[in-house]
Amino acid sequence: MEDLRSSALICSLMELIDARKFADARTIILEQNVVDIAECIDGIEDPAKVLFIFRLMPKEMAAEVFAYLDPDAQQRIVEGMTDRELTHMLEELFLDDTVDFLEEMPAGIVKRVLKLSDSETRQHINRLLKYPEDSAGSLMTIEMMELKKGMTVLEAIRAIRRQSSQKESLSSSFVTTPDRKLEGVVDLHDILASRDETVIEDIMESDVIAVHTHDDQAEVAMLFKKYDLLAMPVVDNERRLVGIITIDDVVDVIEEENTEDIYRMAAVTPDDETYLKSGVLSIAKNRFIWLLILMVSSTITSFIIRSYEEALATLVVLTAYIPMLMNTGGNAGSQASTMVIRGLSLGEMDIRDVLTVIWKEFRVGIICGVGLSGFNFARLIFLDRLDPLVALAICSTLLFTVIIAKLCGGILPLVAKRVGVDPAIMAAPLITTIVDAVSLSIYFALATMFLL
Amino acid sequence: MEDLRSSALICSLMELIDARKFADARTIILEQNVVDIAECIDGIEDPAKVLFIFRLMPKEMAAEVFAYLDPDAQQRIVEGMTDRELTHMLEELFLDDTVDFLEEMPAGIVKRVLKLSDSETRQHINRLLKYPEDSAGSLMTIEMMELKKGMTVLEAIRAIRRQSSQKESLSSSFVTTPDRKLEGVVDLHDILASRDETVIEDIMESDVIAVHTHDDQAEVAMLFKKYDLLAMPVVDNERRLVGIITIDDVVDVIEEENTEDIYRMAAVTPDDETYLKSGVLSIAKNRFIWLLILMVSSTITSFIIRSYEEALATLVVLTAYIPMLMNTGGNAGSQASTMVIRGLSLGEMDIRDVLTVIWKEFRVGIICGVGLSGFNFARLIFLDRLDPLVALAICSTLLFTVIIAKLCGGILPLVAKRVGVDPAIMAAPLITTIVDAVSLSIYFALATMFLL
Repeated sequence: MEDLRSSALICSLMELIDARKFADARTIILEQNVVDIAECIDGIEDPAKVLFIFRLMPKEMAAEVFAYLDPDAQQRIVEGMTDRELTHMLEELFLDDTVDFLEEMPAGIVKRVLKLSDSETRQHINRLLKYPEDSAGSLMTIEMMELKKGMTVLEAIRAIRRQSSQKESLSSSFVTTPDRKLEGVVDLHDILASRDETVIEDIMESDVIAVHTHDDQAEVAMLFKKYDLLAMPVVDNERRLVGIITIDDVVDVIEEENTEDIYRMAAVTPDDETYLKSGVLSIAKNRFIWLLILMVSSTITSFIIRSYEEALATLVVLTAYIPMLMNTGGNAGSQASTMVIRGLSLGEMDIRDVLTVIWKEFRVGIICGVGLSGFNFARLIFLDRLDPLVALAICSTLLFTVIIAKLCGGILPLVAKRVGVDPAIMAAPLITTIVDAVSLSIYFALATMFLL
Repeated sequence: MEDLRSSALICSLMELIDARKFADARTIILEQNVVDIAECIDGIEDPAKVLFIFRLMPKEMAAEVFAYLDPDAQQRIVEGMTDRELTHMLEELFLDDTVDFLEEMPAGIVKRVLKLSDSETRQHINRLLKYPEDSAGSLMTIEMMELKKGMTVLEAIRAIRRQSSQKESLSSSFVTTPDRKLEGVVDLHDILASRDETVIEDIMESDVIAVHTHDDQAEVAMLFKKYDLLAMPVVDNERRLVGIITIDDVVDVIEEENTEDIYRMAAVTPDDETYLKSGVLSIAKNRFIWLLILMVSSTITSFIIRSYEEALATLVVLTAYIPMLMNTGGNAGSQASTMVIRGLSLGEMDIRDVLTVIWKEFRVGIICGVGLSGFNFARLIFLDRLDPLVALAICSTLLFTVIIAKLCGGILPLVAKRVGVDPAIMAAPLITTIVDAVSLSIYFALATMFLL
């Protein structure tokens, strides 16, 4: 639905511009949501037309659209802009959007932008650019609403209205001491709900939930989710207020963290780029190293099989069920590891729950294992017409494999967390390798015992 | 960090209550964030103490805390409350929180709550309870701020301040026609930034982004993410405004949708309960059926192996490399499927990109396949000291397997999407089964060709 909206918009805008009906084009643009215009501009190839559409917008709107553009489109536009135009746009852009944009630009553009900024902005930009990539500092903006605790509600509302156009978020205002230490936070909702003469100090919350500039973005996202925040203050080591993080950026962080987890669970090194925009070499690189590690570690299975080569030569039928045993073990393990990894990511469980997990997975393993083995035994006897002893060896292995896989899947992510490794890399592929080895050893041990 | 905060809170509260220092306990409670108090109450076993703490809070705060409690704690509290207390709390609760709570309660409590509500609220509750579980209607609340387009900014601010305590979100106000059709939306930010005499109609956005009551919550989440919204109106089929959805609920939806995707990709049927709270039987049920399906479908590999039983008997060494081939194929496929499924979930790609995906996966497959085969060939010759022809059969199979796995992994989720099946169930386990069969067939075909 949205894609149609954007492509229809491109068509009609292009037609109007080709027909030199600029006033009509401007009218259409003014009616659109800035996100849709950005999507439309991203889809236009001709740089001259992009710049043209851009110049039709009032400067405030242009800055908003700019913040939503792809880096490629941003670069093309900035390269086409005069210094004067660029200076005006930089004045309108919120600092976090300027920094996000600069992070993707070549050095030449960064230099030009810094040259055109006034010295205070330049200092802020340089400071923000220095925060580590996934830190609270790199997410924050410095355009927050500040109040003094002695103000009345009426004075506060006047201050907020006067400064509103320069603030990225008004949902919370922050109260600081003269040396900029964070003292309290007050929601706009509460200000508006209070009487004119109420003093801010009486309605502010002094137990403020805040993060440090160097805290990880995953921690920030967790706090936003837990406390249903719309904005959160960021403080430095002396607890001085240095910026705020807003929920719209946190939503992106949440999706980014989820993508990273999902990629790691599938043995892919996470990357900032989307699939369609990533180059073949970069995708191959992010996958190859894991495939190699897992391939090498799965050679342990070759050793096990080769050491039973003689037994297998007399009972080749055993070979036929190796893939089924290994797949089922792998799946059983990845089911458990996935649920535990997800629980850890969402903060729903923790290393202290290890005994609960073990006990739960053990029982689930028995239920699933008995069910699968029973089903399989019937199939092997009646359909595959196997010798009952062979079927017994296969099904006993299946039972043990499922239980062990569930236990490994439950425990290993917790162990990873304990030793400070991302639990997500303990997911399916790695556990499969371990479970394969265990499963094969049991298989051959039981087969030798029952059949030879 | 937060857990410590909550358990320290429990301890000090319990001590104060046991020492009958109620005023001190109340002071501590008033200083806390409602989410922390809820977490603390969830951790207290004794129902009498829970109710006691609950009664120490002012009623507005008690309602806020109540909304954050676990259903178990909610039930215990409501069962201990007098009708009068319950009525007061229901008056303070926002309607979406009341409905969320009722959805988890036994029939007796639902009946009691409905009996104590006035007839208008009862109607609203009944209507909200009827929306399908994952619909926009089930997410919304009806306490939104409404304005008329003829109002001035000064009048609007007065109206907002007067009604603020009954509204769940003030970030946007909604403008409707006399027959309640949605005409426009105006951000509080824009109201506050405008002059007193400005008319709402001049600053409202008439191209409103809205959803229908029956739209899926995933669609709602997508729109919030795309347009960086804080609140979104919900309309009925006649485009009448019936409620709003706020970002805090959408953040929960985003995590829920991610969990469902992740579970499906690991062949686990998604469930509303968290891992720790789910019973063993329910976890086993959500996993067993998938394990069974995958086990049965992986029996195709037994057929293939058994049909080559004679060839294998003469060359048992071939068996030793089956697990490595199958694991690598499975991993290569799940890397591709994971990236495509995630791209689809995030709306970054779409079925029209199928050719791009095929071409990209084909090239990535060749790069990874050649790299892995080359590495493996050296290892097989120099470490395992295999016959070069055997090594060649294994490594050629590996190359083909990786390429085919990448292609299947890339294409199948898109096919699933095309035919209206959730792409996530086309993930690792199912693709592994397909790739296994293909890989084994190639293996035996090549081995027969090269070696017999």
